Amino acid sequence: MKLATLRDGTRDGRLVVVRNDGGAAAPAPAAWPSLQRALDDWGAAEPALRALAAELDRGALEGAPVDPARLAAPLPRAYEWVDGSAYLNHVILVRKARKAEPPPTLETDPLIYQGGSGDMLGPRDAIELHDAAWGLDYESEVCVVLGDTPLGTRAADAAGCIRLVMLANDCTLRNLIPDELAKGFGFFQSKPATAFSPFAVTPDELPWRDGRVHVRVRSTYNGEVIGDCLAGPEMHFSFADLVQHVARTRRFTAGTILGSGTVSNADRARGVSCLAERRMIETIEQGKPSTPFMKVGDRIHIEAFDDAGRSPFGAIDQRVIAPEKGAAS
Amino acid sequence: MKLATLRDGTRDGRLVVVRNDGGAAAPAPAAWPSLQRALDDWGAAEPALRALAAELDRGALEGAPVDPARLAAPLPRAYEWVDGSAYLNHVILVRKARKAEPPPTLETDPLIYQGGSGDMLGPRDAIELHDAAWGLDYESEVCVVLGDTPLGTRAADAAGCIRLVMLANDCTLRNLIPDELAKGFGFFQSKPATAFSPFAVTPDELPWRDGRVHVRVRSTYNGEVIGDCLAGPEMHFSFADLVQHVARTRRFTAGTILGSGTVSNADRARGVSCLAERRMIETIEQGKPSTPFMKVGDRIHIEAFDDAGRSPFGAIDQRVIAPEKGAAS
Repeated sequence: MKLATLRDGTRDGRLVVVRNDGGAAAPAPAAWPSLQRALDDWGAAEPALRALAAELDRGALEGAPVDPARLAAPLPRAYEWVDGSAYLNHVILVRKARKAEPPPTLETDPLIYQGGSGDMLGPRDAIELHDAAWGLDYESEVCVVLGDTPLGTRAADAAGCIRLVMLANDCTLRNLIPDELAKGFGFFQSKPATAFSPFAVTPDELPWRDGRVHVRVRSTYNGEVIGDCLAGPEMHFSFADLVQHVARTRRFTAGTILGSGTVSNADRARGVSCLAERRMIETIEQGKPSTPFMKVGDRIHIEAFDDAGRSPFGAIDQRVIAPEKGAAS
Repeated sequence: MKLATLRDGTRDGRLVVVRNDGGAAAPAPAAWPSLQRALDDWGAAEPALRALAAELDRGALEGAPVDPARLAAPLPRAYEWVDGSAYLNHVILVRKARKAEPPPTLETDPLIYQGGSGDMLGPRDAIELHDAAWGLDYESEVCVVLGDTPLGTRAADAAGCIRLVMLANDCTLRNLIPDELAKGFGFFQSKPATAFSPFAVTPDELPWRDGRVHVRVRSTYNGEVIGDCLAGPEMHFSFADLVQHVARTRRFTAGTILGSGTVSNADRARGVSCLAERRMIETIEQGKPSTPFMKVGDRIHIEAFDDAGRSPFGAIDQRVIAPEKGAAS
C-alpha cells in the first residue's frame, strides 16, 4: 500500500491512498483525515486503507490523478525525526573530509542524531538558501515511519514497529558543522528542514529483506546522475538494529520517522548520495575538491528503483532558491 | 492564563483552563480539545480560553478540583523539544565534571540540543530506571512553548512567538554521555523522556521580563531542599536570544518547546538544579563526589515560586521506580 498527503490548507494535509503505479489516488475515509491520525489508530485504519488501495489497484475505483507538486511530506509535521548513519562508507568519507577519525565503535554502535521534525518539506518544495557560505548539501536517504515502539524493543521484534518506508533529502549546511560539533551538542543549525518522497509505502510492497530496502537510490544533480547507490547490502545497521539502539532508554510514539543516513557504497562507480562524499573523493584523487556546494538555481532529483525498474516512492525533486524578498535571513 | 492537560485516554489528552490559584479547572471549548489544537489556532483560541479563565478567576464558574496525578504533560507529545544551556555556571561545572573545557564561544553562541519530543511525562509520572549504572540525574529547567516561528526571527521579535511557560525535569543518564559525545553526534540515549509541570502559563501572568522568568526554582530531593535557584538574572541567553539562535536556518511549528537548560547560580548557597553540579562541587571541595546518582525509591520535587511565594506552574513530583516486571530492559 502507498499513502500520500495532499495539501489542503490544514497543518496535517489530507491523507490519500495511492494506486500501486502512483498514477491516481483516493481520499482516505473521513475517520483518518491525516496520516498521523491513521498511524495513531493503525489497527483500525490499516485494513480500511488497504481495502481502498485494493479497489484502486484492480480498477474498481478510478481515483484522481496525482500531482506531486500538490503533495506535502507524508507527515508534514512529525513527532520525531531520528536519523542514523548506517552506511559506514559515508561515515568514513565524511569524517575524512572533516579531518576527523571515525569513532572506534563504528561497526558496533550506530551513529544517531535527533533532527527537527516540526516542519517537513514536500517532494517538490524549494530549498531556500539564505547564505551560500553555509555550504548547502543534499543527502539521499531511506527512512521508515514507526508505530508505537516500547522502550527496550529488540531488533528481533522491531519489524512489528515499522509501518511505512519513504525517501528523504536530509539537507545539510556543511560549513556550519565544524563549529557546532566543536561545541559538543551535535547538529542543530547545520540541519535545515528535511524533504520527503511523495509516497510512504508499506514494506510488503517493497523489496524489503532483513530490515533493509533493496532498491537503488538515484541522485540526479542538475541533470547529471551523480549517484546510483544500492540501499540494501551496505546498510551496516538494519532499521531493526537502529530501532533497538534508539529504544534503549525511551519509547517512541506512532509517527516517529527513523532515517538510514546517506546511502553510500564503497564502489566508487556507484557515485554519491551527497556532495560531501564527491568532494572527499576529489580530494583523495586530485588533492582538493572541485565540486562546489549547492547554489541558487541548482536542482536535486532523488528517486529509488527496484530491480524491475519501478519507482515505488516517486521522486523528490527540489530547486534551490533565494529567500523571498523581504524575508528575514 | 493557566492551561493544563487532563488524561482522558486519548494521545493528546483534554485541554482544561485552570483558575489562577491552580485549584480548579474547566474544560476548554470543544473547538480546542487539546493544547496542540489551541496552539494551531491560537488567534481564535486564546480569547476564548482567556474568557473562560476570567470566569474561573472571578468565581462565575466553579470548575472541578485539579488532581495533579490525573494531569499529563501540557503537551503529551510535542513536535519538537529543543533545549538550550543558557545558565553558564551549569555549563562550566558540568564540563569540569566531564573533564572537558567549556567551548570558547560560551558567552556568544548558545549551546542547544534537539531532544526527543514524542513521549513527554506528566508532573507525577514515575521515572523508570532500567539500569542504575546509567547514572540517572534530574535537571530542573524552565521552558517556553512557541507559536509558529519563522526562519530568521530576531531576538527583538521573538516575544510574539512565545505563548506559554512551563517547568521541566529534563532527566539525563550521565554515565551514557561520555561515549555518546565521543561519537560526535550529541545526546541521544543519554536523554530519556522529559517531564513537565502541571500548568503552562502565559507570560503576562508571570514575573516575565527581558525574555526571562524571574522565579526561584526549588528542587527538593528525597525531602531535602537541594536547590533554590534564581531563574532570571543568570540566564545568560534569554528565551528571545535562544529563539533567534534556533531559527537561524529553519522555522518552527506551533507547539515547539524550547528549554533554558538547567537553572544554575554561581552563589553556591543557592544549591543545585541537578546532581552533576553537586558532585562537581564535592569534587572541587573534597576531592571526589559523595552524592550518588538517583536510585529506585528516590523522589524529586521541582517547583517555582514568585516573590510573593506563589507557585505559578504547580509542582513536578516524580518517584524513581524499577521497570514493570516483564518489561523489556
